[in-house]
Amino acid sequence: MSSTFGEKIKISVFGESHGNGIGVVIDGLTAGEKIDMDKVLVQMARRAPGKDKTATPRKESDLPRVLSGMLGDTLTGAPLCAVIENTNTKSGDYSNLLSCPRPGHSDYTAFIKYNAANDIRGGGHFSGRLTAPIVFAGAICRQLLEKRGIKIAAHISSIGSVMDKDFDPTSIPDELIEKLNGSSFALIDDFAEEAMRAEVEDARMSLDSVGGTVECAVTGIEPGFGDPMFDGVEGVIAKAVFGVPAIKGIEFGKGFELSKMRGSQSNDSFRYDGGRVVTETNNCGGILGGITNGMPIVFKAAIKPTPSISQKQKTVDLQKRENAELEIHGRHDPCIVPRAVPVIEAITAIAIINILGNTE
Amino acid sequence: MSSTFGEKIKISVFGESHGNGIGVVIDGLTAGEKIDMDKVLVQMARRAPGKDKTATPRKESDLPRVLSGMLGDTLTGAPLCAVIENTNTKSGDYSNLLSCPRPGHSDYTAFIKYNAANDIRGGGHFSGRLTAPIVFAGAICRQLLEKRGIKIAAHISSIGSVMDKDFDPTSIPDELIEKLNGSSFALIDDFAEEAMRAEVEDARMSLDSVGGTVECAVTGIEPGFGDPMFDGVEGVIAKAVFGVPAIKGIEFGKGFELSKMRGSQSNDSFRYDGGRVVTETNNCGGILGGITNGMPIVFKAAIKPTPSISQKQKTVDLQKRENAELEIHGRHDPCIVPRAVPVIEAITAIAIINILGNTE
Amino acid sequence: MSSTFGEKIKISVFGESHGNGIGVVIDGLTAGEKIDMDKVLVQMARRAPGKDKTATPRKESDLPRVLSGMLGDTLTGAPLCAVIENTNTKSGDYSNLLSCPRPGHSDYTAFIKYNAANDIRGGGHFSGRLTAPIVFAGAICRQLLEKRGIKIAAHISSIGSVMDKDFDPTSIPDELIEKLNGSSFALIDDFAEEAMRAEVEDARMSLDSVGGTVECAVTGIEPGFGDPMFDGVEGVIAKAVFGVPAIKGIEFGKGFELSKMRGSQSNDSFRYDGGRVVTETNNCGGILGGITNGMPIVFKAAIKPTPSISQKQKTVDLQKRENAELEIHGRHDPCIVPRAVPVIEAITAIAIINILGNTE
Amino acid sequence: MSSTFGEKIKISVFGESHGNGIGVVIDGLTAGEKIDMDKVLVQMARRAPGKDKTATPRKESDLPRVLSGMLGDTLTGAPLCAVIENTNTKSGDYSNLLSCPRPGHSDYTAFIKYNAANDIRGGGHFSGRLTAPIVFAGAICRQLLEKRGIKIAAHISSIGSVMDKDFDPTSIPDELIEKLNGSSFALIDDFAEEAMRAEVEDARMSLDSVGGTVECAVTGIEPGFGDPMFDGVEGVIAKAVFGVPAIKGIEFGKGFELSKMRGSQSNDSFRYDGGRVVTETNNCGGILGGITNGMPIVFKAAIKPTPSISQKQKTVDLQKRENAELEIHGRHDPCIVPRAVPVIEAITAIAIINILGNTE
Repeated sequence: MSSTFGEKIKISVFGESHGNGIGVVIDGLTAGEKIDMDKVLVQMARRAPGKDKTATPRKESDLPRVLSGMLGDTLTGAPLCAVIENTNTKSGDYSNLLSCPRPGHSDYTAFIKYNAANDIRGGGHFSGRLTAPIVFAGAICRQLLEKRGIKIAAHISSIGSVMDKDFDPTSIPDELIEKLNGSSFALIDDFAEEAMRAEVEDARMSLDSVGGTVECAVTGIEPGFGDPMFDGVEGVIAKAVFGVPAIKGIEFGKGFELSKMRGSQSNDSFRYDGGRVVTETNNCGGILGGITNGMPIVFKAAIKPTPSISQKQKTVDLQKRENAELEIHGRHDPCIVPRAVPVIEAITAIAIINILGNTE
Repeated sequence: MSSTFGEKIKISVFGESHGNGIGVVIDGLTAGEKIDMDKVLVQMARRAPGKDKTATPRKESDLPRVLSGMLGDTLTGAPLCAVIENTNTKSGDYSNLLSCPRPGHSDYTAFIKYNAANDIRGGGHFSGRLTAPIVFAGAICRQLLEKRGIKIAAHISSIGSVMDKDFDPTSIPDELIEKLNGSSFALIDDFAEEAMRAEVEDARMSLDSVGGTVECAVTGIEPGFGDPMFDGVEGVIAKAVFGVPAIKGIEFGKGFELSKMRGSQSNDSFRYDGGRVVTETNNCGGILGGITNGMPIVFKAAIKPTPSISQKQKTVDLQKRENAELEIHGRHDPCIVPRAVPVIEAITAIAIINILGNTE
Repeated sequence: MSSTFGEKIKISVFGESHGNGIGVVIDGLTAGEKIDMDKVLVQMARRAPGKDKTATPRKESDLPRVLSGMLGDTLTGAPLCAVIENTNTKSGDYSNLLSCPRPGHSDYTAFIKYNAANDIRGGGHFSGRLTAPIVFAGAICRQLLEKRGIKIAAHISSIGSVMDKDFDPTSIPDELIEKLNGSSFALIDDFAEEAMRAEVEDARMSLDSVGGTVECAVTGIEPGFGDPMFDGVEGVIAKAVFGVPAIKGIEFGKGFELSKMRGSQSNDSFRYDGGRVVTETNNCGGILGGITNGMPIVFKAAIKPTPSISQKQKTVDLQKRENAELEIHGRHDPCIVPRAVPVIEAITAIAIINILGNTE
Repeated sequence: MSSTFGEKIKISVFGESHGNGIGVVIDGLTAGEKIDMDKVLVQMARRAPGKDKTATPRKESDLPRVLSGMLGDTLTGAPLCAVIENTNTKSGDYSNLLSCPRPGHSDYTAFIKYNAANDIRGGGHFSGRLTAPIVFAGAICRQLLEKRGIKIAAHISSIGSVMDKDFDPTSIPDELIEKLNGSSFALIDDFAEEAMRAEVEDARMSLDSVGGTVECAVTGIEPGFGDPMFDGVEGVIAKAVFGVPAIKGIEFGKGFELSKMRGSQSNDSFRYDGGRVVTETNNCGGILGGITNGMPIVFKAAIKPTPSISQKQKTVDLQKRENAELEIHGRHDPCIVPRAVPVIEAITAIAIINILGNTE
C-alpha cells in the first residue's frame, strides 16, 4: 500500500529500476482538459540525467507512452496510465548487494522487509529513477493548476554550504517562476552556480557526494484550502515530499528558525492591500491552522548526500553474517539536488491538486 | 475529512474549545488488551495546563469518560470513544475575533474556509485543547506498543536559543525514557531547565511568547516496518505531527544538517553487534528508504511561538474591510513547548501503531 | 477499521448496546448550513422501538446530545459528534451468550474475532441499537441533500409473503415521499398494513420472527454522479446498506428479475421530455455504468428474520466444547422491517452525499 | 477515484477499450511468493471471447505483459503492473454514439459526467474488456489465497429461465471447484448446458440478448474475518462485485428468499463436527454480523442482458436534442454470463484477500 498518493487525484507509481518498465496511473483527472505534452516532456527532461557534467553518465530513455486516459491531447476522465519502457540497463553491477547492503541505501531495510525477494538491481522500486513517473504525473497536475492561476517553482536553495538566495515569500514574480521552471540548475541568484558546481566537483574528486536543500513556492492559491489537523496543508505536502527518495526534513515558512523567535517577530500581521487581505511578512509559509491564507506557500526540503559513493565503506555480509567492506563501482551522481528540483515541484503539484480537488 | 488519522488504527478527533465536549473515536484496536487507565491519566496530566508557573491559569478538566470500546479495563475490539466534557469555560473573551483575526492564529483562514460559521470561541476546533484527546488516544496506543517492546520518549530540545542535549540516537536507555515519560518539563540535561524557564519568563515579561523544538525517539522497533514512497515512515510520522497545532518543521536523524554533509559522513555504516545488524552512527534517524532499520527512530519538530501575545498587533477588520489593531486580553501560555512534549509522543504512538498494524 | 463510512463525508459510529453511550462523529459537513433538529428527532423516533404493538417493549432513550460541530442550529464545519447516553439497560439476560452463541446472531463470529473480549451484552457493537446514530447522521445528511432537491424515501416492500406495491420508478411524487418519511409503518398501499401486521403477529404467536424487504428511492439527483467500476453508485450504496444489521441482499432497478429478461425488455429507451433526457422505463434503477442517469435511483434490500426467537434452538457450548440447546428469554421484536425503513433511508442519504460531495 | 479497489491489496485498473493498452497495478502483494503464470493465463482464457460459438467474434489478444513487481516467477513486493496492449481494434463502428447513446449502456451517463470528452470507442473505460485486467489481478490473488487453503469457484446459476443446480452451501467438494475453475461454461449440473445454449441462441436469432445469474462460493476461510458494520464481508464483496459491468443485484446465502422465511427456518443451528463448530444449514452464506463463520461464503449476482442488441431501439440525439432511433451494427455477444463467471471469481479473490490481509 505504499506507492499510491492522493484521495481526490490518486496516483499509483509502479516499476523497478531495471525491470521492464516504470510508470504511473493517475485516477480522478477532469475530463476535457487539454494537456500540452511538450511541456510535460520539458519537465521530464529537467529531471533526466546526463544534462550536464555534474550528472550521471547512465543514459535513460524517459519518454513516457500514454496507454489510456487521453484521446489526442485531451483527458478522457478515465485513469491515465503512462509507461516508460526500460532500455539500455546493465544489471551486472548489483549482484552482491543482496549480501552486502550499501550504507545509506534501502538495501538492508528492503532485504528485511521483502525477505530478500525484492529486485535489488539499481535499487529496484526505491530507485531515484521512480521519480520520472512522479515528474510526469506532476507535469499533468501542474498544467491543470496553472489554468486556475496556481504556479509552482522550486530552486536549489543550497548545495553543501553554498547557498542561493531565498524566495521573498510575500511576493514571487511570474518571471522568476518561469525562469526556474525551465532550468535544469534552477537558482534565484545565478551567481551561486559556480560555487555550487565547484562543491559538487569537489565531492566527486573526493570520491564523495554532497547534499543540499530545495526551496519550493506555490503562488496564486486562494485562502481557505486545506483542513485542520491531519489534512492540513503542511501534513499533506510533507507526506508527498517525504515520498521522494533522500528527503530527510521539511519546514514551512521560517520553519526551524521560528523555534528561536518571539511571537511578536513570528506573527505575520494582516493588512488590506487593494481590497485583499495580505500579510506583512510570511513567516508561516502561507499556512495557518493547516489552511492556506492566500499568501504563497513556501517550504524547504533537506536532501541527504547521495549514498552511493566510490569510497570503500563498512557494511555487513548478510549471508556470512559478518562485518564486511564494500566498494561501489560505476559512476554515480555526486549530487542529486539539481535534479530533485523538478521532482519537488512535481510532487508538490500532486499534493496541491489533492488539497484543492479537481473542481473549480 | 480533516480530523481523522490512520488506516489500521483510525482515530477521529472531535470537539471545539468551548463547545459541549471534545473527544476521540479510536477504531481498530485489538480486543482483549488490558489498558492501565492510570497511566493514561498521567499522560493527560503532563499535557494539562496549570502544572507550574509557566502554564496557563485557565483551569481545564481533562478527565476523559470512556463511552464504548472497553469493558472494565479491557478493550472490546469495538470503536473506543472517550469524551472530555467542557466545563468552566468563559466565552466572552472571543467576541470580536470573527471581525479581527489574531495574527498567527487560524482565525482568518477559518473565517474564509467556513464562511464565518466556525466556532471561534477559544479557537474552536483549532484550539490546542484538541490535543487532549490526541494524548488520550496516544496513551492507549503506546501501551499496546510497549507490550511489543516499543517505547517513545520526547524532550524539550530547545526553547528559544536555550538547548537541551540531543538523544544519542544509537543508544537510548530505558531509564531515560522512563524519566522523560513522567516529566512535565522533560529534559535530558536538567541543567537546561533554569535557563529555559528564564527564557519563557523573559518572554512573558515582554508580553511576548517564545517557540522551541521537541526531539522524539522511538526505540525497540524492529527493522522492516514502513513502506517505500508515500507510506514511508518519515511521511506517516510527518503527517501525524503536522496535525499538532503550531508545528512548522520536522527533520529525521540529522535532518537539515545532512544537507551540508558529505556522503562519507552521513552514511551510517553497518556492523554486527551480537548477531544483530546495527549502524555505527544513526544520521538517518532509523529510517532508510522509508523503512525502519532497527535503530531508534529519531526526529525533531519545530514549534512556533504561541501566537497569542499581549502586545498590540496589526490586523484587519473583516467586517469594516479596513486595517485595524488588536489587543488580546486574558493570560496566555507564553511557551507551549513543555506541554507539546507529551502531545508529540502521543501522536507518534498513533503514527507508529499505524505503521506496524495491530497484529503481532 | 470497521465502523467508518465515506470519503467526502466520513461517519464514524461507536458504542455498544449496553455500554455508557453510543454515537457518531460526522466529519466533512459544510459549515454554515442550518439543521432542523426537530426533523432529526422525527427520523430517530421512526426507528425507536415501542412505537406500536409490533415493536419491542424495551424502552430506549434515543435523544442525541450534540457535543461539537454545531453552534445553535448551524453547522460549524468541525466534526459533529452526537452521543446517545445509555440508560435503563438490563444486562443480566446476556450472561450465557459467551458460552452458547445464538444462531443467526454475531455471537459466535464475534467470539472468534475478538477472542471473547467483546461486549456481548445486547449484542454489543453489533446491536441494532447502533442504527440509532446512523439514523441521526442520515437525518443530518438528508437535510443537506434536500436543499439540493434530492429526496429519499423507503417503504416496507414486503413482510414475509405480504407485499406492498412497488414504486413507479419513472415517477415518484413528492407527496408520496413526504407520507413515507413521516410514517413508522411506511407503505405505498396502506391496505397492506393489516395483512403485514397479521403476519408479524402470527410469527410472534409462533414464538418466531419474520423477514421482509425494503424498497428505497432517491429522487432529484442529476445525471452524471458516481464513477465507473468500484465507485459506481450501486457499489457505494451496497457497501453502506450492508452495514445495516440483517441485510442479506440488494438489487437495483429490476435487479434479479433482469437476469430472466431479454435485452429488448430490459434496456430503458431514452426520450426527450420537455428538454430533459428521460427513460421510458427505469429497469436499471437510475444507474448506468455506475453513474446516475437522472432518473430515480431505486433499489430493494432483503432483511432476514430477526434471529432472536423464543423457540428452543440448537447451538454449541463453546466452553464445554459440546452441542447445546438455547432458549432466549425476554421479549424480542418479531419483525424489524418497519423500523429498518428509516435506517435504510438514513444510510442511503449518507451514501448519496458521499457520491455527490458536499459542494454544490 | 473510481477504478481502484482495496485497502490492503490495492488494485488500480486502467485503460479504454480501443486505446493503446489496458492493465492493472496491484500494490501490497507479499514479496517472495511464487506465481504460476500459466494458471493466470488459464483464467484469462476463460474470460476471453471467441472460445465457442456463443461468444463474440471480435478477436482480442489478452496476453498480459508484466512490467514490474515480479522477478522471474516471484513477487518482489513492489507494485505489480501488467499491461495488455490493444491490437486489432476497429473503431469505425462507434462514431455516432456520442450523439445517440445506446440504451442500457453508459454512453449517456458518461457523456454527461465527462462532458463528451470520454473515449466512447468500444465503451471506453466502461467496456467489458476492462474485466481482463481484473481477471489477471484476481488470478494472482487467488494463487496467494490457495496457499492459505482458500478456494473460489463460481458457476452459471441461470441464463434466462434455465437454472443450474445451486451449491450445497454446507459442503463444496474440491473436485467441483477444480472442475468449475477450468471450465469456460461452468456448470454444476452439465445437463443444463444444452438448454442454456439454446436460450442464448434463441436470443441471438431474435436479434436480442439474455441475462442470467452467477453463483460464487469461497471455501476454506476461517471464522473471524471481516468487520462489523461497513467493512462487513457482504459489503466488501458487494462493492467489488458491483464494479463488474452489468451486475445489478447481489444476495448472500438465501438472500432475498430469507425475507419470506421465519427465523426458525433461517437461523443456522450450530453444532460441533469433529471439534470444529459448523452450522447445520448455511442460509447466512457463511457470514454473521459481517464476519465469516467458517462455513463457505456463498452469494449470487444478477447480470442484466447484454445491452447491445441488433434490434432498432429508441434513443435521443444529444446534438440535435431530439428523439432518435438507433441500430447497433456489428456482432455482439448475446449473453455474457459464461464469461462473467471467471470475472466474478477474480473480483471475489480480490475482495477476499483484502478482507484477510496479506499476512498469514
